[in-house]
Amino acid sequence: MKLSAEDQAALDGARAQTHATRRPTVAALEDRLYLPVPCLDHGFVRVIDYMGDDAAIVQAARVSYGRGTKTVHGDRGLIRYLMRHRHTTPFEMCELKLHVKLPIFVARQWIRHRTANVNEYSARYSVMDTEFYLPRPEDLAVQAQDNRQGRGEVLTEAEAAEVLHLLKRDAVQAFDSYQHLIEGPGLARELARIGLPLSAYTQWYWKVDLHNLLHFLSLRMDSHAQYEIRVFADAIGEVVADWVPLAWEAFCDYRLGGATLSAQALQVVRRRLRGEVVTVEDSGLSAREWRELEELLQG
Amino acid sequence: MKLSAEDQAALDGARAQTHATRRPTVAALEDRLYLPVPCLDHGFVRVIDYMGDDAAIVQAARVSYGRGTKTVHGDRGLIRYLMRHRHTTPFEMCELKLHVKLPIFVARQWIRHRTANVNEYSARYSVMDTEFYLPRPEDLAVQAQDNRQGRGEVLTEAEAAEVLHLLKRDAVQAFDSYQHLIEGPGLARELARIGLPLSAYTQWYWKVDLHNLLHFLSLRMDSHAQYEIRVFADAIGEVVADWVPLAWEAFCDYRLGGATLSAQALQVVRRRLRGEVVTVEDSGLSAREWRELEELLQG
Amino acid sequence: MKLSAEDQAALDGARAQTHATRRPTVAALEDRLYLPVPCLDHGFVRVIDYMGDDAAIVQAARVSYGRGTKTVHGDRGLIRYLMRHRHTTPFEMCELKLHVKLPIFVARQWIRHRTANVNEYSARYSVMDTEFYLPRPEDLAVQAQDNRQGRGEVLTEAEAAEVLHLLKRDAVQAFDSYQHLIEGPGLARELARIGLPLSAYTQWYWKVDLHNLLHFLSLRMDSHAQYEIRVFADAIGEVVADWVPLAWEAFCDYRLGGATLSAQALQVVRRRLRGEVVTVEDSGLSAREWRELEELLQG
Amino acid sequence: MKLSAEDQAALDGARAQTHATRRPTVAALEDRLYLPVPCLDHGFVRVIDYMGDDAAIVQAARVSYGRGTKTVHGDRGLIRYLMRHRHTTPFEMCELKLHVKLPIFVARQWIRHRTANVNEYSARYSVMDTEFYLPRPEDLAVQAQDNRQGRGEVLTEAEAAEVLHLLKRDAVQAFDSYQHLIEGPGLARELARIGLPLSAYTQWYWKVDLHNLLHFLSLRMDSHAQYEIRVFADAIGEVVADWVPLAWEAFCDYRLGGATLSAQALQVVRRRLRGEVVTVEDSGLSAREWRELEELLQG
Repeated sequence: MKLSAEDQAALDGARAQTHATRRPTVAALEDRLYLPVPCLDHGFVRVIDYMGDDAAIVQAARVSYGRGTKTVHGDRGLIRYLMRHRHTTPFEMCELKLHVKLPIFVARQWIRHRTANVNEYSARYSVMDTEFYLPRPEDLAVQAQDNRQGRGEVLTEAEAAEVLHLLKRDAVQAFDSYQHLIEGPGLARELARIGLPLSAYTQWYWKVDLHNLLHFLSLRMDSHAQYEIRVFADAIGEVVADWVPLAWEAFCDYRLGGATLSAQALQVVRRRLRGEVVTVEDSGLSAREWRELEELLQG
Repeated sequence: MKLSAEDQAALDGARAQTHATRRPTVAALEDRLYLPVPCLDHGFVRVIDYMGDDAAIVQAARVSYGRGTKTVHGDRGLIRYLMRHRHTTPFEMCELKLHVKLPIFVARQWIRHRTANVNEYSARYSVMDTEFYLPRPEDLAVQAQDNRQGRGEVLTEAEAAEVLHLLKRDAVQAFDSYQHLIEGPGLARELARIGLPLSAYTQWYWKVDLHNLLHFLSLRMDSHAQYEIRVFADAIGEVVADWVPLAWEAFCDYRLGGATLSAQALQVVRRRLRGEVVTVEDSGLSAREWRELEELLQG
Repeated sequence: MKLSAEDQAALDGARAQTHATRRPTVAALEDRLYLPVPCLDHGFVRVIDYMGDDAAIVQAARVSYGRGTKTVHGDRGLIRYLMRHRHTTPFEMCELKLHVKLPIFVARQWIRHRTANVNEYSARYSVMDTEFYLPRPEDLAVQAQDNRQGRGEVLTEAEAAEVLHLLKRDAVQAFDSYQHLIEGPGLARELARIGLPLSAYTQWYWKVDLHNLLHFLSLRMDSHAQYEIRVFADAIGEVVADWVPLAWEAFCDYRLGGATLSAQALQVVRRRLRGEVVTVEDSGLSAREWRELEELLQG
Repeated sequence: MKLSAEDQAALDGARAQTHATRRPTVAALEDRLYLPVPCLDHGFVRVIDYMGDDAAIVQAARVSYGRGTKTVHGDRGLIRYLMRHRHTTPFEMCELKLHVKLPIFVARQWIRHRTANVNEYSARYSVMDTEFYLPRPEDLAVQAQDNRQGRGEVLTEAEAAEVLHLLKRDAVQAFDSYQHLIEGPGLARELARIGLPLSAYTQWYWKVDLHNLLHFLSLRMDSHAQYEIRVFADAIGEVVADWVPLAWEAFCDYRLGGATLSAQALQVVRRRLRGEVVTVEDSGLSAREWRELEELLQG
């Protein structure tokens, strides 16, 4: 990921500024401000602005006059209580603004999270940069057999080379045509871009409250999410861990690392703990659910 | 727009069903149910389901026990009053569900309307059909000079031919590669699709309430919207006119055909009506706003 | 719950209408249409309109041309899969419209669910009926000791009588003043109503998609919800069971009857299933979480 | 409006803190931070936190690496362009968090704005303060004759005195009963509060983006809004003017001070400017719309 001289100067300028504020600040996030975290081959995530911290969650839950904090210990307990009991509104009182550069097919998954504010680079208004995503060979895999929307075995070296050759050849040709259409006949940008591939990079500003951000992460850090969006989600997860460490810890304990059992699965666990032998046949679970429960309980 | 035999049979089956209901029905919309309205070269819009009618708007505004209707005349007056004074919530009491087939670059503009329900065909789960949008020659135009995000003069015949040649060649090649990647090495669908162009067609179910639908239409039937999404918006506008004719009439009078004047523009109008001669210099308007006002007042 | 003669006539008229439609219908819900289900002393819930059925969920998940149904067995499996894996968007394709009469303090909890359409009776525009909620003696309880926002022991008969006396006396007096202010000096309705109690009944039309409705029910049928809103949630739950029986069954199995375990609780279960003895001290759980887990596992 | 000693200390503590930040700051808003602006007899609005400034709007519109600002002049022009053409998403990139104390009947109007984050003081969890709203005599007026939801003539002194006597007497009695129910039989707080009047004060944290805030203000600063919520909206308007002065100026010019003409009204204006005499009969306007247009054009 390389920045243009102009972008680098803008970044340096933003990093150099410092102001006095009465608002709460988070030192670890101040350190990160504006710095791009590389994602995939040309993408990045960088923090543009933030509002609130762990104490702001507590403050809102108490609707109090002061900062809400009694002790760090008390704050931690309350935040864990709120997370456990799905009292979600206090987490909405923190807000994060990110600048993201990402392939269009990732942007199409991302945008499905509706409760967020977005400003995307406009390919009607501006010319697109010649940048597209090419997977690393080790990320190329066959269609999963057991799961209609995932990846299975990694491709052989020869297969991977062929795949990358085709993807690259087509993308380069599409971008060449794009350039030509704009510079030759002067085709309107909104039309010239329709031949660009879904691997082309776009950019946006994305602003979201902490509750909806955590919901986004719970879905997009999940192993069922497409690898390419997971890379971005993981990068954002590290930002959140720095920003609101108590909320992040609670999120890891009660969401990411937790599990939801169905009524039937819960019954299987109860019976086993009582010493019963339970079989798939008398469990009330489908074969697939049974297998998933087995995996879960083995850890 | 051609349907497969299977889709045609499903469509015929849906059209043939008829049930008794206590719910309000709209005859003109019943006639349209399930029938695709062609849009662009391979796209369509078709109504899958609807809730409510003009009387449902009135009923909700009155929070009444009955159907709310006193007389059609009274309903019309109330609906116009609601539209004029931006009492928007009664319009949310009607709901429309559409099945849409549309190019991905159109879908990317459409999805920015967040207050709607969407289920899109998944290119992770299913194989994409080989269908992409090619503009008609008469829709190919150069970048607008006076407007950074629009179209200007239509291309010459020779230019148009070249543009279409390139767009078609690249799209065909990208779809060929896609087929090959899936059938040859068996690349995961979620990866194979990243080389497909933004002109590729996708499909979704889109469900929205009438208030948000009218807002969508006010933006996407506008002359500043990209032509390709306007085609869909116009088709939906005809559906709405059939469905809730009183609300549609009010929408045309107070939104589509109306205009918003700034404080300064309003002052110019007032001064002129008093017989004053107003110049751009003493109008408080920028040159561009002045020009837009002149055009508006000449009609 | 008594209806005025005018309301009863409107209701009978609505019930008597019947139309032919190509839309899917649900016989059990058609039977219920417009009929109020009494809730608390003067409230009710009644279905005004609905869109979709179990098959509409399947249809949207498949973005298919037809009704999506292969077999009822196939539909059930898919709906359970969607519920289990929190694929929530297909459930948004069904919509329910209710007319609800409810005390204002219940309305204030209810309205916090933001993703819904609402038209409330306006106390600025119309005169409020003289109707307020009085709990039954058996629903009066002291403040819970172990839970800062719940109820504990039921009051004695004498205590209950005193409570009801005070609540009734104050409410009657407030409504008397309200009447007087409107009829005497002719005070604006928007001012006269500020003295009415939170127990006063209001009414609204409430329209919501099935996904958000189930989320509402999961929170408001919960034992932590205030009893008075639970009464309404339970009544709506019965409507949903009639409307989309497969979705309701999946919701009961995977949400209502299920449970979420934290990472630490999951570890406790794993260790116990391996035969380990786990104590609260080495469990990583707080005393309260430990107790909650114990209760959960005993069933 | 008096603060308790504890609240005053918390406020002073928050005001005394100052930190260094790389984020943009707005000096005029920093001066205001945490200070309550009195509203009505016991209410207030105070700024708890903010994100962004005028330059942040520009930055998002350009999806740029730096702060976006070229010149203040350029920023102003772009912000006015965005406001004029209803490009609303860049305004969503600024966020404001307020702490508000307000009567419950005002809160019930306010909460209808759904796109915001709210944490309200819980009357299930905590005991309510004995504070209720009593209008000033000069704010008491009769029901409007020409408008079913507004106020007409101010009451006479004697009428006002009677109204205030009744409102105060009932509220005091309801709060006395509340105290007694909690302290005597120990009734659960969630039940004891149901007799409190709609004039009782509640509190909340309210967080909203600038676009939705301006929409809120355009409706609640309007002369059709109830006086009591207008007081709060006006107070917030002054905050916004300090925070994002360029956006505020554009909002005043294009929204607050502007006007929307219907297709028919526009036609009347055009005809008049051409020198035609237009009458209500051949205007296509209703008598009421005609009167409203006359008033608008006279200014």
